[in-house]
Amino acid sequence: MFEGPVQRLIDELSRLPGIGRKSAQRLAFHLLNVEQADARRLAQAIMDMRDQVKTCARCFNVTGSEECSICRDLRRDPAMVCVVERAQDIVVVEKTQEFRGRYHVLGGALSPIGGVGPGQLHFAELRERIGNEGIEELIVATNPTVEGDATAMYVAREMKPLGVRVTRLASGLPVGGDLDYADELTLGRALVGRQEM
Amino acid sequence: MFEGPVQRLIDELSRLPGIGRKSAQRLAFHLLNVEQADARRLAQAIMDMRDQVKTCARCFNVTGSEECSICRDLRRDPAMVCVVERAQDIVVVEKTQEFRGRYHVLGGALSPIGGVGPGQLHFAELRERIGNEGIEELIVATNPTVEGDATAMYVAREMKPLGVRVTRLASGLPVGGDLDYADELTLGRALVGRQEM
Repeated sequence: MFEGPVQRLIDELSRLPGIGRKSAQRLAFHLLNVEQADARRLAQAIMDMRDQVKTCARCFNVTGSEECSICRDLRRDPAMVCVVERAQDIVVVEKTQEFRGRYHVLGGALSPIGGVGPGQLHFAELRERIGNEGIEELIVATNPTVEGDATAMYVAREMKPLGVRVTRLASGLPVGGDLDYADELTLGRALVGRQEM
Repeated sequence: MFEGPVQRLIDELSRLPGIGRKSAQRLAFHLLNVEQADARRLAQAIMDMRDQVKTCARCFNVTGSEECSICRDLRRDPAMVCVVERAQDIVVVEKTQEFRGRYHVLGGALSPIGGVGPGQLHFAELRERIGNEGIEELIVATNPTVEGDATAMYVAREMKPLGVRVTRLASGLPVGGDLDYADELTLGRALVGRQEM
């Protein structure tokens, strides 16, 4: 509908997840109206990220270097490793400020329906790390979904024989939540995982 | 929270309208995971748009040339001009396939509170076009808002003395809508604008 370059940008923007036709159009016209430098900075940030971002050779976190800043941080405890599905999950765990170990990004979750088997995820590298880095505990922080549960179970079954403790994040009621609004699955897990007080 | 290039892209993306922190993060990781060529094409589209898009010398539509494709189209009736607030409004009117004239983009609407006076909008250029192009009718398609109404009134008052007919898009019930859900202002306008059948 629009002339060449505008329409091309709208097309590219609508390929992004969660950006529909209307939003893409609004974004394109926004970028048309902002300062030239602002638009250029966004374009440059996209290019830079693709050119500069690598995955950490140890834990598969995103990084600008050979190893990520967490793996390079000598104050972090190498004996504790938090296993997550995706690199963006690391930030969520970091925000709690409760974990001072390292991470291992699997690159997804096991999903027979989605065609994701153990071979597609970074299990072999995790096994190697257990052998080399003196890891004592794996805290599995996969999502509380069918796939995340299956992945957690796979980690426990495969890695416990190597002599590490394998734990999983507790499932239960969200803090500040209301019992009335909890679904039965969450409530069921909260019951099973009840703690002595 | 993220390392350099990833965080910079998240920051840039969150500056876009309607894109919050979480969406920016999701988009950034999406762009990290798609094919390099796809990410590059988006960045290029942003740069290209800023480098190539101009405003039409006649009607202020966005264009890649000196004049926009609508103004250059000889089959369009130069005697009818649809006056819109913004260039993106042209596409909405074009979609109806009911209008075969040309356009004039004002660049906004009059807003005493927002500090937009007649001097900031393309009224002078419209007046000049009326003198030069044999325009017979201005169809004012500003938004049905306080600012859009004021702008439409200003167009009528200023341009009618130049010998053009000035009309405005009808306000009323949306087609397929339900009388129950119409607000009183819309219903009021529909009453005032009622048509003989």
